Amino acid sequence: MERTQHHLGYPYNLDFDYGALGQLQHFSINNLGDPFIESNYGVHSRQFEVGVLDWFARLWEIEKSEYWGYITNCGTEGNLHGILVGREVFPDGILYASRDSHYSVFKAARMYRMDCVKVDCLVSGEIDCADFKVKLLANKDKPAIINVNIGTTVKGAVDDLDFVIQTLEESGFSQDRFYIHCDGALFGLMMPFVKRAPKVTFQKPIGSVSVSGHKFMGCPMPCGVQLTRMKHINVLSSNVEYLASRDATIMGSRNGHAPIFLWYTLNRKGYKGFQKEVQKCLRNAYYLKDRLRDAGISAMLNELSSTVVFERPIDEDFVRRWQLACQGNIAHVVVMPNVTIEKLDDFLNELVEKRSTWYQDEKVRPPCIAADIGSQNCSCALHK
Amino acid sequence: MERTQHHLGYPYNLDFDYGALGQLQHFSINNLGDPFIESNYGVHSRQFEVGVLDWFARLWEIEKSEYWGYITNCGTEGNLHGILVGREVFPDGILYASRDSHYSVFKAARMYRMDCVKVDCLVSGEIDCADFKVKLLANKDKPAIINVNIGTTVKGAVDDLDFVIQTLEESGFSQDRFYIHCDGALFGLMMPFVKRAPKVTFQKPIGSVSVSGHKFMGCPMPCGVQLTRMKHINVLSSNVEYLASRDATIMGSRNGHAPIFLWYTLNRKGYKGFQKEVQKCLRNAYYLKDRLRDAGISAMLNELSSTVVFERPIDEDFVRRWQLACQGNIAHVVVMPNVTIEKLDDFLNELVEKRSTWYQDEKVRPPCIAADIGSQNCSCALHK
Repeated sequence: MERTQHHLGYPYNLDFDYGALGQLQHFSINNLGDPFIESNYGVHSRQFEVGVLDWFARLWEIEKSEYWGYITNCGTEGNLHGILVGREVFPDGILYASRDSHYSVFKAARMYRMDCVKVDCLVSGEIDCADFKVKLLANKDKPAIINVNIGTTVKGAVDDLDFVIQTLEESGFSQDRFYIHCDGALFGLMMPFVKRAPKVTFQKPIGSVSVSGHKFMGCPMPCGVQLTRMKHINVLSSNVEYLASRDATIMGSRNGHAPIFLWYTLNRKGYKGFQKEVQKCLRNAYYLKDRLRDAGISAMLNELSSTVVFERPIDEDFVRRWQLACQGNIAHVVVMPNVTIEKLDDFLNELVEKRSTWYQDEKVRPPCIAADIGSQNCSCALHK
Repeated sequence: MERTQHHLGYPYNLDFDYGALGQLQHFSINNLGDPFIESNYGVHSRQFEVGVLDWFARLWEIEKSEYWGYITNCGTEGNLHGILVGREVFPDGILYASRDSHYSVFKAARMYRMDCVKVDCLVSGEIDCADFKVKLLANKDKPAIINVNIGTTVKGAVDDLDFVIQTLEESGFSQDRFYIHCDGALFGLMMPFVKRAPKVTFQKPIGSVSVSGHKFMGCPMPCGVQLTRMKHINVLSSNVEYLASRDATIMGSRNGHAPIFLWYTLNRKGYKGFQKEVQKCLRNAYYLKDRLRDAGISAMLNELSSTVVFERPIDEDFVRRWQLACQGNIAHVVVMPNVTIEKLDDFLNELVEKRSTWYQDEKVRPPCIAADIGSQNCSCALHK
């Protein structure tokens, strides 16, 4: 396995060197159950886990005594947990999620037997609050559980949290009749370091936030951070006869290495280090988008994102070689801290060269992707 | 962290040396989604994952073309998956599980909004099929989804799979009206190597089996193996509009290191190696039980188990020092391959010595645990 692989399509930051931490593999570390409840099992990393949670609690502005959370096995577990908490708070609540939400959100609805309403998206990939309002008004009798995306999987779109809350209020949903889960899988940790970005904070009426640890933070195993309000967890843990345990996590046994890696990264890079890396990612993403457009290739970059969406290359070998993630006629590159300008240049030069052969014959034309990224971003024969 | 800790109460086999595999920590390995569906993401260990699954398919006697499975993050995920498959096969099915089942089974019922009926246990911890029959007959109109324990958490009891199936048939449940999930967390991998043990096999009408990888197999991170019948997964994946994906796993992102460790262990130890280790564990467990009884201490060991249940030590420092898992008046030691006779002797000698001080005063007597382990195993003042 080559460490510097070409995976441009996946949001994994491989720019790390954990050195001696590799030795941790010699220990079987298991964080059993609730991180805040002591266990007899001695080989755990709860101190690190709680340290990481405290760091995120400060970032998302919630008091130590007011939050509960844990380090999950992946972003999906964060969504499964956040939506489960929402359902326990509002057992008859309807789940609202934009069509561009991660599929784990819809998986949760099915698992939990919840009514789920899909909300349309804007071309950017953001939730369309006009459509959201229509759907809220059609279901005024039931509480609302909303999945808000802090960076969608495909387009890196950030739902406007403030506008979502405003729409809820305008539709007659008071704060005791809605629950918001913020799926911050990738961008939940980048956005706090972007000037002008709307703030994700527990000072706003949100119920939970989750973020992945193996993406921007570069943890070498899938993991995530999940934070919610303590008062909600008390609801989840109330039915003890049924649960037979105070364990409010989903998974029970949890990887004990991950918290140590996360803790190490937080302390080595710190707030300033993340800020610098985020700025570099946004700068490089901007560079990639501009160079694509200069080359006459349809491309879009959301303002608060480092995910560049562009026309899907028609050669599957090329897609595989650069490990691009595709959907329909679009592909994307997620610019992570380990993706350098040099790598982007290599990619761009190869793409431009290949395109000249793919499209040398006038019979095959680049696809129109105006429906995916807007006509102003489309460079097809019709829109250019 | 000391590798040779005293954790006798937890079923983690720490007797391994992965040597150079520690270097794997330098790679971010992620097995995204279904192990049998190709992904563009290049740093995965799917070949190892499928290799491990094939090994278990042979062990549990199901054809390569007939099974589906994946490597989970822990035993809980195996149970969550097995029970979810059962519910998708029988949407109105009732979940039956013995009171000694792992709490994740009851957590699943709550998550999935399933009706759940708790079945009594025998003193051994096995499911009481007489009570099971009464409860089946009271709910004849609904299909049955049954959690069968291959080694309960506390007493290491193995439910009699054949008797469970016979009870279902006698109660009028034909094979198309029940689904059996076997929770083999710890003992699912040990039992195949025990002579006289009833066989867990897909030749019998079971739907799924799960087993932990970080217990007997000694994988240094929590993980598990989950196998089910391909035809059931097709049911789970059918509602694609809703799922928006063919990913039939629960977690989506999965630790890519675990399959490599599991594969390494399977190949290094092999069938014969496991057999030897299981025999050693059972022998040592037998030794521990005998020595406890010889010392006048209440103790029980189920025939097919290496979990020795005994009177809970009254000194919490002692409990913590040996990391015993306790419940009510009982404690247990799980004899894993890394637990030697020498370690058991140290433990026994210390326990006997401490007891002589705890119980020197006639006013404090050892607890009666006949209700937990049967009067024939109890050495309290009344039963000895």
